[in-house]
Amino acid sequence: MGKIICVGLGPGDPDLMSVKADRLVRSAANVAYFRKAGRAGQARRIVDGMLAENVTEYPMEYPVTTELPFDSPDYNALLAAFYDDWAGRLATIAATRDVVVLCEGDPFFYGSFMHLQTRLQGRAEVEVIPGITGMTGCWHASGTPITWGDDVLSVLMGTLSEADLVRHMQAADALVVMKTGRNLPKVRRALAAAGRLQDAWLVERGTMPGQRVARLDAVEAADCPYFAIVLVHGHGRRPEAME
Amino acid sequence: MGKIICVGLGPGDPDLMSVKADRLVRSAANVAYFRKAGRAGQARRIVDGMLAENVTEYPMEYPVTTELPFDSPDYNALLAAFYDDWAGRLATIAATRDVVVLCEGDPFFYGSFMHLQTRLQGRAEVEVIPGITGMTGCWHASGTPITWGDDVLSVLMGTLSEADLVRHMQAADALVVMKTGRNLPKVRRALAAAGRLQDAWLVERGTMPGQRVARLDAVEAADCPYFAIVLVHGHGRRPEAME
Ligand SMILES: C[S@@+](CC[C@H](N)C(=O)[O-])C[C@H]1O[C@@H](n2cnc3c(N)ncnc32)[C@H](O)[C@@H]1O
Ligand SMILES: C[S@@+](CC[C@H](N)C(=O)[O-])C[C@H]1O[C@@H](n2cnc3c(N)ncnc32)[C@H](O)[C@@H]1O
Repeated sequence: MGKIICVGLGPGDPDLMSVKADRLVRSAANVAYFRKAGRAGQARRIVDGMLAENVTEYPMEYPVTTELPFDSPDYNALLAAFYDDWAGRLATIAATRDVVVLCEGDPFFYGSFMHLQTRLQGRAEVEVIPGITGMTGCWHASGTPITWGDDVLSVLMGTLSEADLVRHMQAADALVVMKTGRNLPKVRRALAAAGRLQDAWLVERGTMPGQRVARLDAVEAADCPYFAIVLVHGHGRRPEAME
Repeated sequence: MGKIICVGLGPGDPDLMSVKADRLVRSAANVAYFRKAGRAGQARRIVDGMLAENVTEYPMEYPVTTELPFDSPDYNALLAAFYDDWAGRLATIAATRDVVVLCEGDPFFYGSFMHLQTRLQGRAEVEVIPGITGMTGCWHASGTPITWGDDVLSVLMGTLSEADLVRHMQAADALVVMKTGRNLPKVRRALAAAGRLQDAWLVERGTMPGQRVARLDAVEAADCPYFAIVLVHGHGRRPEAME
């Protein structure tokens, strides 16, 4: 009897993988990972050069990513069938041997593996290894702490409505906006409406090759990659000599 | 010329340290770490058994922790002098050799090192290594993903006013409340007022020895340790077969 071990790989730099993740990845005989059809896959790219020579690879290719609206019934049905299918395949593999599932960042933080895990309950042993989240890699790329003292941090998805984005952007001190990509123009309008645009940074591919850090108001909204996060740093309490 | 390298150690389990942090800690000739006077110090405890035999240790003992209100002028003055003093000492060390500063979790996420870093600008070379945040360790300890789909996550400090806590608890889908400790009764009242108490979990010492995970409404508020986080998990969009 084997098990399914989902390993958080961290934001991108392989040196930021945990000691435990590093060990599991290097010794894995079977690895599975999500990817967009026709792409290498970010999780797979992070472990380049680390896998055992005779490893068996299982790329799990999303049937759809941004071709359909994520709230449409078709999108939902296609993804549900995809997760059902791979949960079954992984359970079959785990009946006889261990399989390591590679996930960017931390698997329990907006990760796709969770949709497999809910389907695997009672069918296979599952273990999940934490990783450094993508946002943590991004605020380090920015060179500036994200939160101090009593700061309230809100993490928002670029897929939210513009009105919801504005409301949350006004209420928090520090902000992280993920899933920017094609939502960037909306995210930027919301930041402007909330009076936060001048303090926002865009971090593309944080800690990965091709990393870019720029003030959001100086960036062309046209071509934002999938691995991009918008940050507004907090300015909370700091013990300082009084004037 | 040396430099000051602040290393994020992750939530507690040494196996969750990054490969880079592990390497830096094991090879350090000089290490510094914050601690409460008379205590071992959590950061120091995480690296037990990992330090080189002839390492030089610099415990940086807070002049005050919870004896004074954190918004009082005395607290501010004592801490400012403490950070000024250690910034100077670390700069002096770094003039001739490297020194590794140990920090729990991720240093750029409500960490104390940031108060040294601002004071070290232009005086010494400083590098900061990301770590898995304490909250990430805690949601893994709970065994349940913290966020799905479009969930809004808010990170709150138990030191906020009860009214502010309630307002933010009502607005977000998923919640993390840090610095609970003696603030736990207030945090619990705020969760109840926001209608979230029945979904709240208390994680004490996540991924450390003595870890405890319990439903918050079943816990005596009397003795909550410093290393404790309250979690409310999100329930965002999940692709599921339609009925
Ligand atoms: C489905 S979420 C997965 C998050 C992942 N589980 C984590 O812990 O970061 C994908 C989003 O994460 C963000 N992201 C993750 N890693 C990133 C990185 N290294 N640089 C920039 N954005 C990143 C992007 O906003 C992307 O759209
Ligand atoms: C000053 S903050 C430092 C946070 C740290 N830099 C991080 O990234 O987690 C200290 C608070 O972090 C939380 N914390 C950190 N690690 C924890 C753990 N392993 N278990 C429970 N709480 C933790 C507690 O709420 C504690 O009061």
